[in-house]
Amino acid sequence: MNTDVPSATPARIRTPEPGDPRLARLALNQRTTANWSLPEAVRGCAAAGIGAIGVWREPLAETGLARAARMIADAGLRVSSLCRGGFFTTGNTSDDNLAALDEAAALSCPTLVLVPGGLPEGSRDLHGARQRVAEAIAELVPHARARGVRLGIEPMHPIFAADRGVISTLAQALDLAEAHPPDVVGVVVDTFHLWWEPGVLDQIARAGPRITAYQVSDWITPLPPDALLSRGMVGDGHIDFTTFTRAVIDAGYRGDVEVEVFNAEVWAAPGAQVLATCARRHAELLAPHLPREGRST
Amino acid sequence: MNTDVPSATPARIRTPEPGDPRLARLALNQRTTANWSLPEAVRGCAAAGIGAIGVWREPLAETGLARAARMIADAGLRVSSLCRGGFFTTGNTSDDNLAALDEAAALSCPTLVLVPGGLPEGSRDLHGARQRVAEAIAELVPHARARGVRLGIEPMHPIFAADRGVISTLAQALDLAEAHPPDVVGVVVDTFHLWWEPGVLDQIARAGPRITAYQVSDWITPLPPDALLSRGMVGDGHIDFTTFTRAVIDAGYRGDVEVEVFNAEVWAAPGAQVLATCARRHAELLAPHLPREGRST
Repeated sequence: MNTDVPSATPARIRTPEPGDPRLARLALNQRTTANWSLPEAVRGCAAAGIGAIGVWREPLAETGLARAARMIADAGLRVSSLCRGGFFTTGNTSDDNLAALDEAAALSCPTLVLVPGGLPEGSRDLHGARQRVAEAIAELVPHARARGVRLGIEPMHPIFAADRGVISTLAQALDLAEAHPPDVVGVVVDTFHLWWEPGVLDQIARAGPRITAYQVSDWITPLPPDALLSRGMVGDGHIDFTTFTRAVIDAGYRGDVEVEVFNAEVWAAPGAQVLATCARRHAELLAPHLPREGRST
Repeated sequence: MNTDVPSATPARIRTPEPGDPRLARLALNQRTTANWSLPEAVRGCAAAGIGAIGVWREPLAETGLARAARMIADAGLRVSSLCRGGFFTTGNTSDDNLAALDEAAALSCPTLVLVPGGLPEGSRDLHGARQRVAEAIAELVPHARARGVRLGIEPMHPIFAADRGVISTLAQALDLAEAHPPDVVGVVVDTFHLWWEPGVLDQIARAGPRITAYQVSDWITPLPPDALLSRGMVGDGHIDFTTFTRAVIDAGYRGDVEVEVFNAEVWAAPGAQVLATCARRHAELLAPHLPREGRST
């Protein structure tokens, strides 16, 4: 447990124990431990002293909504986000998004993360796809408001513009979000997706109360062969988490900090070791920049 | 020769023959036929009726500057660009950039393409690296002016922000370029790097006479494992070349259209077949949007 994964380097600090105030706002996004079921992830968080979890809909469906909600509540965990709604560009996903909103409400989850979707098969109309995202969000807004769940538009790294997310910058996500009230439509700030964006610190300030989730992972080089699994553990790559995190806090964000690392080597490591590394990196690189007053969003 | 590479699909049109007006502005960037020496590429262009070549410095050095200049002139080719100068962020490259300007001048090449460079080893200071690029360009400007060679700032896809090019959007490149006269500092518009940029058509219009090179390749999915070799042949991917090319022409650009495809499968194909595919795709997808009056830049 005193070796970081997947770097196999010695841990730089002792692993914070459950109750350590530095863990107060750390959340585990389930995709960081993709080989764990939801019950395993819940038990893992409880054992590691991680107080919140970002839930994915596929493992949620495997466990069953009612059972999952009970289990999460019994473990005393918050649900920091539900991943994912959206995929607006490649067909009618309206029913699926309504189901996702119901699930988020049942989990007392504040935010449904919206992955915009890529270009439809054979299409080269990026502008049209972006328009479709704006329209679909507008259609979803009354339903989100009715359920008390905030929509979180996730701008995605341009590496995914063709096949996953046509909204490519925080500036562009805010242009979309600002057509709607901030308590209904927010934005997801993800370091992997946004670290390169010119002027991103100004955009984070502009986002202010629209920031509805803060997700962290690193940009590593050489980029792993599968673009979808190319995220690094926080601290292993090129992202300046100090500057980024301070900007998010200065913008008023007081929610959880979700570690979301899609990476084949992380997935191959034992879950408990992954969580221990996440806890150490969070305590070292993120917690010092978070206010101590606890979670208030 | 009637099969496109690397798609192995039947050619949709007959290969344009040398002298075909549709080829008037097609240029071969040498990296599209990376296994060819410079003399081979020059002979290949002449045989295919391609009137311009984008030269790379490494094969240029192998051939020798004087010999290369003579050979290119004897073949009646224009040099559309010299690749690459720059790499400003990772050490003192001043002498190397001055040498590159001399080479461009000797080749009567209008533009030295500047690859900005990535983050210095171990650095997470993206803002600082971007500042360094601005300073280094300013230092290079009087030397470029003295040699009559235009500096072409190449904004690069954010996939390369960490390790190759910290200038990530055309908007950002123009912010840098506009500190200098347009005849000395321009921008390189490359479809692969920029197709995803929100508002890119407006930025192309803003660029106007600053556009000093227009390079084309496609964005293909799934992305090949090596990010550096992930470019597709024009027409094989997701980019709308019609809209992009019209914007570049509407902005006033009258230079060559350089096909630049870094792709292992393209490199593995016979060079003549690669050039035939480039000629067909250019005639089909790009030439219809170019003015017929010929090259005037």
